[in-house]
Amino acid sequence: MNSNGLTPMTRLEIVVDASDVSFVEQLLVAEGVTGWTGVPAASGFGHHGRSEGRLMFNDHTGPTMMVAVLPDAVLDGVLAGMREFFETRAGVMFVSETYVSRPEYFTAPVSAVSG
Amino acid sequence: MNSNGLTPMTRLEIVVDASDVSFVEQLLVAEGVTGWTGVPAASGFGHHGRSEGRLMFNDHTGPTMMVAVLPDAVLDGVLAGMREFFETRAGVMFVSETYVSRPEYFTAPVSAVSG
Amino acid sequence: MNSNGLTPMTRLEIVVDASDVSFVEQLLVAEGVTGWTGVPAASGFGHHGRSEGRLMFNDHTGPTMMVAVLPDAVLDGVLAGMREFFETRAGVMFVSETYVSRPEYFTAPVSAVSG
Repeated sequence: MNSNGLTPMTRLEIVVDASDVSFVEQLLVAEGVTGWTGVPAASGFGHHGRSEGRLMFNDHTGPTMMVAVLPDAVLDGVLAGMREFFETRAGVMFVSETYVSRPEYFTAPVSAVSG
Repeated sequence: MNSNGLTPMTRLEIVVDASDVSFVEQLLVAEGVTGWTGVPAASGFGHHGRSEGRLMFNDHTGPTMMVAVLPDAVLDGVLAGMREFFETRAGVMFVSETYVSRPEYFTAPVSAVSG
Repeated sequence: MNSNGLTPMTRLEIVVDASDVSFVEQLLVAEGVTGWTGVPAASGFGHHGRSEGRLMFNDHTGPTMMVAVLPDAVLDGVLAGMREFFETRAGVMFVSETYVSRPEYFTAPVSAVSG
């Protein structure tokens, strides 16, 4: 990969039950994460208990995949909070290296990067 | 990325037609993968033939993105099985490095990690 | 990760508003990308402005996560085009290293790899 002009960051991929998304969101915000994207998962097993597709998109009560990108300065706090979360709640978390073209987008206050 | 306290694993991302998901799931289970998450894709081209959004979430007949994380000991068997699968079926597979905080979660029997 | 028999490629993950997907698709095609997969996102903030779940899968007007894998020869053109796009439009782009088993699949003309 040609990483010319790109800045390394950490990509967090968290799969939790839809009912836990707002808890995780609050943790991310409290630790300084500037954004995340949520994708409703429709099937799978193991990582979150077996679940199947649901009738309507809005009725999402199964697992949600949350993707967030953050700088190193924020990672330790998020990992500590998620480790504590996973002591009592189901889910998985994958941590990967990624690169972005606008690093300031992931370190500025939410109000400055929205929309 | 600060990988302190994290264990390296392999992240598999497989995009196949929804009708092939159960075949791939059986392959993953047979090779010892402990979990995966499925996300219904709504559009795209090339990787799985063109497809567009559908009327309801449950009517998913297009491509599905399957994400699984597994240890090295399991990777070779899965890759061999998927290569054989792709000889006759459409789809793509991406293999990436990732890190997890609870490696035992991805090597234990399914019954021990569900829900 | 055991990358034996696999070829390194670049994985692009782009989150844009659903109304911008066709523009990004045209850019990817023009630069020689052979395929992508689109996943409708249902929630999140910051990366694309806050959005919530919608009533039906087909009514997708919020953010879409687009995933494409491409060879190095194509990356610079795509990055340049996306940088220009982000000067006026909301969204994020993550660039990661990945590996594939069939590299020719990501460099051949679209007509040769579809379906």
